[in-house]
Amino acid sequence: MPTLTGQALRLHPDRLLPAAPELRSIARRLYDEVRNLPILSPHGHVEARLLVEDQPFPDPTTLLVTPDHYVTRLLHASGVSLDRLGVGQGPLSPDAAREGWRLLCENWSAYRGTPVKYWLESALVEVFGLDLRPGPDTADELFDAIADRLAHPAFRPRALFDRFRIDVLATTDDPADDLAAHAALRDDPTFRGRVVPTFRPDRYLEAGRADWARDVLHLGAVAGVDTGCYAGWVAAMEDRRTHFRRHGGVSTDHSHEDVGTEPLGTVEAERIYRAALAGTVTQDEATALRRHMLLEMARMATEDGLTMTLHPGVRRGHHRPTGARFGPDTGHDLPLPGAFTDALRPLLDRYGTHPNLTLVLFTLDEAVFSRELAPLAGFYPSVYVGAPWWFLDAPDAIRRWRSAVSETAGLSRTSGFIDDTRAICSIPARHDMARRLDAGYLAGLVAEHRLDEDEAAEAVVDLVRGRPTEVFGL
Amino acid sequence: MPTLTGQALRLHPDRLLPAAPELRSIARRLYDEVRNLPILSPHGHVEARLLVEDQPFPDPTTLLVTPDHYVTRLLHASGVSLDRLGVGQGPLSPDAAREGWRLLCENWSAYRGTPVKYWLESALVEVFGLDLRPGPDTADELFDAIADRLAHPAFRPRALFDRFRIDVLATTDDPADDLAAHAALRDDPTFRGRVVPTFRPDRYLEAGRADWARDVLHLGAVAGVDTGCYAGWVAAMEDRRTHFRRHGGVSTDHSHEDVGTEPLGTVEAERIYRAALAGTVTQDEATALRRHMLLEMARMATEDGLTMTLHPGVRRGHHRPTGARFGPDTGHDLPLPGAFTDALRPLLDRYGTHPNLTLVLFTLDEAVFSRELAPLAGFYPSVYVGAPWWFLDAPDAIRRWRSAVSETAGLSRTSGFIDDTRAICSIPARHDMARRLDAGYLAGLVAEHRLDEDEAAEAVVDLVRGRPTEVFGL
Amino acid sequence: MPTLTGQALRLHPDRLLPAAPELRSIARRLYDEVRNLPILSPHGHVEARLLVEDQPFPDPTTLLVTPDHYVTRLLHASGVSLDRLGVGQGPLSPDAAREGWRLLCENWSAYRGTPVKYWLESALVEVFGLDLRPGPDTADELFDAIADRLAHPAFRPRALFDRFRIDVLATTDDPADDLAAHAALRDDPTFRGRVVPTFRPDRYLEAGRADWARDVLHLGAVAGVDTGCYAGWVAAMEDRRTHFRRHGGVSTDHSHEDVGTEPLGTVEAERIYRAALAGTVTQDEATALRRHMLLEMARMATEDGLTMTLHPGVRRGHHRPTGARFGPDTGHDLPLPGAFTDALRPLLDRYGTHPNLTLVLFTLDEAVFSRELAPLAGFYPSVYVGAPWWFLDAPDAIRRWRSAVSETAGLSRTSGFIDDTRAICSIPARHDMARRLDAGYLAGLVAEHRLDEDEAAEAVVDLVRGRPTEVFGL
Repeated sequence: MPTLTGQALRLHPDRLLPAAPELRSIARRLYDEVRNLPILSPHGHVEARLLVEDQPFPDPTTLLVTPDHYVTRLLHASGVSLDRLGVGQGPLSPDAAREGWRLLCENWSAYRGTPVKYWLESALVEVFGLDLRPGPDTADELFDAIADRLAHPAFRPRALFDRFRIDVLATTDDPADDLAAHAALRDDPTFRGRVVPTFRPDRYLEAGRADWARDVLHLGAVAGVDTGCYAGWVAAMEDRRTHFRRHGGVSTDHSHEDVGTEPLGTVEAERIYRAALAGTVTQDEATALRRHMLLEMARMATEDGLTMTLHPGVRRGHHRPTGARFGPDTGHDLPLPGAFTDALRPLLDRYGTHPNLTLVLFTLDEAVFSRELAPLAGFYPSVYVGAPWWFLDAPDAIRRWRSAVSETAGLSRTSGFIDDTRAICSIPARHDMARRLDAGYLAGLVAEHRLDEDEAAEAVVDLVRGRPTEVFGL
Repeated sequence: MPTLTGQALRLHPDRLLPAAPELRSIARRLYDEVRNLPILSPHGHVEARLLVEDQPFPDPTTLLVTPDHYVTRLLHASGVSLDRLGVGQGPLSPDAAREGWRLLCENWSAYRGTPVKYWLESALVEVFGLDLRPGPDTADELFDAIADRLAHPAFRPRALFDRFRIDVLATTDDPADDLAAHAALRDDPTFRGRVVPTFRPDRYLEAGRADWARDVLHLGAVAGVDTGCYAGWVAAMEDRRTHFRRHGGVSTDHSHEDVGTEPLGTVEAERIYRAALAGTVTQDEATALRRHMLLEMARMATEDGLTMTLHPGVRRGHHRPTGARFGPDTGHDLPLPGAFTDALRPLLDRYGTHPNLTLVLFTLDEAVFSRELAPLAGFYPSVYVGAPWWFLDAPDAIRRWRSAVSETAGLSRTSGFIDDTRAICSIPARHDMARRLDAGYLAGLVAEHRLDEDEAAEAVVDLVRGRPTEVFGL
Repeated sequence: MPTLTGQALRLHPDRLLPAAPELRSIARRLYDEVRNLPILSPHGHVEARLLVEDQPFPDPTTLLVTPDHYVTRLLHASGVSLDRLGVGQGPLSPDAAREGWRLLCENWSAYRGTPVKYWLESALVEVFGLDLRPGPDTADELFDAIADRLAHPAFRPRALFDRFRIDVLATTDDPADDLAAHAALRDDPTFRGRVVPTFRPDRYLEAGRADWARDVLHLGAVAGVDTGCYAGWVAAMEDRRTHFRRHGGVSTDHSHEDVGTEPLGTVEAERIYRAALAGTVTQDEATALRRHMLLEMARMATEDGLTMTLHPGVRRGHHRPTGARFGPDTGHDLPLPGAFTDALRPLLDRYGTHPNLTLVLFTLDEAVFSRELAPLAGFYPSVYVGAPWWFLDAPDAIRRWRSAVSETAGLSRTSGFIDDTRAICSIPARHDMARRLDAGYLAGLVAEHRLDEDEAAEAVVDLVRGRPTEVFGL
């Protein structure tokens, strides 16, 4: 598709609200209740170091294109190789940065219908104050204008953080991380935001991985625990969770192929653990050990109160040649069918009604919205349905999710919006999008007389402020 | 979420009709065609004994909360333990009843977005003539007002049955039941409704159950057949089906984990049956025997004409501690993935075009609506798509179902609405909800010029009266 | 359901456009951009011979009912046996033709809510100029009127082809076909359309089929290659692909139970191939060989550039008695769950970024729209999401598809509309339906300010002309 250029770029005040006038007027009023609330971002991938260092972003492409697989994957699908976008190559030269930006603008039509277009347009207009539609004719002008702004202090990370009105920002961190960046921010009197780490132990649970033995030994060293035996592995996890909690952590995150939680006997766990250290574990054994440890993580959660979020069902690095050349998170992680009901049964039998457990379930398989997630969250007091994630963090998908989940689980058993992004400039647009869509969804209930408007007004505020506060204990 | 109180509770005359004026006006006219038609309820869980005894309901909580897992599960998810609601405890004391009602009102916001809110509000306004929104401040006033009404003869079961204009009500019954209650109603000249039993033999088909051997011996005793051998088991089923048919039964209902119907050879069936009686059956054998018997049930249906309804794909009693303490049907039966195409092939190969078979397929897995149910019902003259069931008996889900099913199976291959409820006061609201949604769906087809309005007017009446009459042979 | 008759049949100019006035006005303008564009039909089942022979269609039933399983299956579901419709019986007698037509008209209400009704109504009005609604009272009048028109030269196949403004029509052909009909059309100076063959080798890949050995030997004879060994089998395929390409072919089509593409070693492939020729192959071996050959087909596609379309996941001939009596394609092919992510991984690892590969993925399982198809097409430059197929080629399903696919894959990673029909008179209505729905979908994006109207106007033309041209290299 060619790209139309020379058009002004504008954000309509009613964007994403329902088009029908009867609904739009209600939706506007509901949106007004929440449009200016501060942002709570309890799960995401912006790094704390960015705010500690507070350096200017080097160029538009490094900020908005190269590291964001939401952006690069559609360029790749359009025939642009990832190396022309600077993926996996370290700092971009000025020419490479301009070239990457041009490729984005030339392929602007590839984003039609996607939320990536919406987020990038929002960033151009609201973050950078630009009103030019990207296209081959405007690429250089946009590049130069953004580059110009990035040189100003008002566009450094901390300034953006303040301007975006972010109250809480969660990062995602390796259990072996010392969290020095988080401590620095906490101890810095000139920084007033709350930046909390998230304990993400996936790699230490996958005993079939090539580097697993090395990694758990390193984790043991960090924790001051001998991870040469199963009990040490568990103790190291407990130690690092405590470290995270002391640095403000509120949750742990887990993303494996499935959410199996079948326990092993202690002897069997020890046997498999040692086989894994010796490099003789089978894939089935490694999977069994991981499922056992996921159950252990839930047990730890009942003890330390960290919210447990599950993001299962992804085939990581689907295209092996791209993974080998460009590394992880390069746009070809692909969803698998979801299954929660039986997989989580051992965990929920043990801890599902424990007052200290909070479990948030995310999926990329829409079939489980109404079939499994909502029924689970509609019974277990520990379970919440996570907001639409990744490919599903998009207007129509969010509507389908609300529609599929609310009738069984109500509004209060959902997590609140999660941006899950590494693209800092997209954070306000993502949260604003969710607020507009929730306002529109609730307006529909009001217009059909399924909810009174005062109830909807209370609910929309609860979705934006109440849910994340409760679910993540903020 | 807190609850807003002090607001009036009103039912808008256009509730659940499409919000857009172009559609709403058509939908109103279509709804007018069916709003006053009597209720046909060919599948549900109200007990015949209730109408035989015709005793006053003891209190609001016992009527509207405790026995209804649609209501209790969301309170449980909100942190209210089931014993505070009186689940599984026999008659409630006056204090316990009031306390249970207060918990409902205090957690009223948990139902936002759910049909449970809609049904309860409808009951309050239309059954009890109350206009107060439930909340902590109105709990006692509502409780007292309902209790007051329940003491009047106009709120006894038979009076409600008449007032709700129920023409046919199906109960769900154990094959060993003597159906004396049904006979009593039939023979009572002062009762004019038609209350028909439904043959639900699940427990006698699950040969892996702990009490199975005891149960089939009891069934044999009731049937006057020796169930010590496989042939007796089959004969006892045939005998009891005849008993049900003679007491007005129109259908059998089957709810197993799957709908497999692979036949066994007679020798193998006999061998497994005897192993099951001896307590030495494996789970795989028990499953094979159940699938074989489900096929036999279809064979019997071709002989006696009872409509066969399938409600598969539920993990019953997911949370074992709750099941052990509070019993079955306490809110944690959870859906599993559905699969019909291959599972039903043995049955449909044999009987799918038999003129005497009627098979109604229900699911909790929306993925099979368009993938399997509609294509099956769009070819086999014996197959109908069952109305949205349980978690899916809700406005948006019903719309998704109509949208997913109609384009492949048309309107005439669906079952008509099924309320499937044990909450008698929700029956009129459930049927009215379905009528409003069908009117809205058809209005959409008319507004998009996919159907003329005279066709839609005929269709909406057919959905309410024609479908259940044909599908259940009423 | 009875059928209303005596009503006029009219096609509203705004049919299928959104009902809300705000959207409809935008949709009208977008539809105007494409309503008169010529038809590109890169995949379907009309036969080239029909245009070569250019004989009058014998009667309305033979043209519109008997061969079209979209039409006959719902009559069958309504209790009309296929033999009363002349299925599988050769030429119809005049009485049988009239009788078949009457059955259609008497059961007209069975099609309410389906696109079959829409297509047939469009054909009656637009192809035949009739304005009578089908019903028992109008059956004979309609039959006679259509029969009358069919006798005129203006209703012969070539005249319809011209009148429908078909620029490209793809047929579906056996690899052993000499394609003489295609050559005749190409060499006929009086015929100006482009009719291209499609290479459909399914039967030669299913080594477990009863006639497989005979078929591959025949294929070898046609190709002039000894297919007595594995290498000959591959060479015969390559030869016939070349033959198709020389006769204008642009694509190959593959419809197996799954899309597994796991390679075999050469020795193992040879071993299984010889076992299959000897009739000693197991079903698992046959499946492994088919998956291996599907991967080989992708390799050939990278060499000859033929677009590869996959239509998996159908249980063919579900009702064996009907299959035995009436043959294939008689309305009881039924969908199975879809799975692409892992199944296609071997193929995509090898060829997913090959510049010469184009792979179009179709499904009957809506759950994979957003879960697998869109994510695959949103990364791999070779992959496109196929238009909704078969049961899903219907207004609501098309809307669900656009909604599920666009947010992840954009608009440009879709195939363009595919009619996939053997009913020539439905071709214009099917394409027109798709254009109206795309206009409506894009109007929704415009009305919600997710796309500017000039972008939408460009996009709608691209969907109708650009996508099929690019995807099928027209």
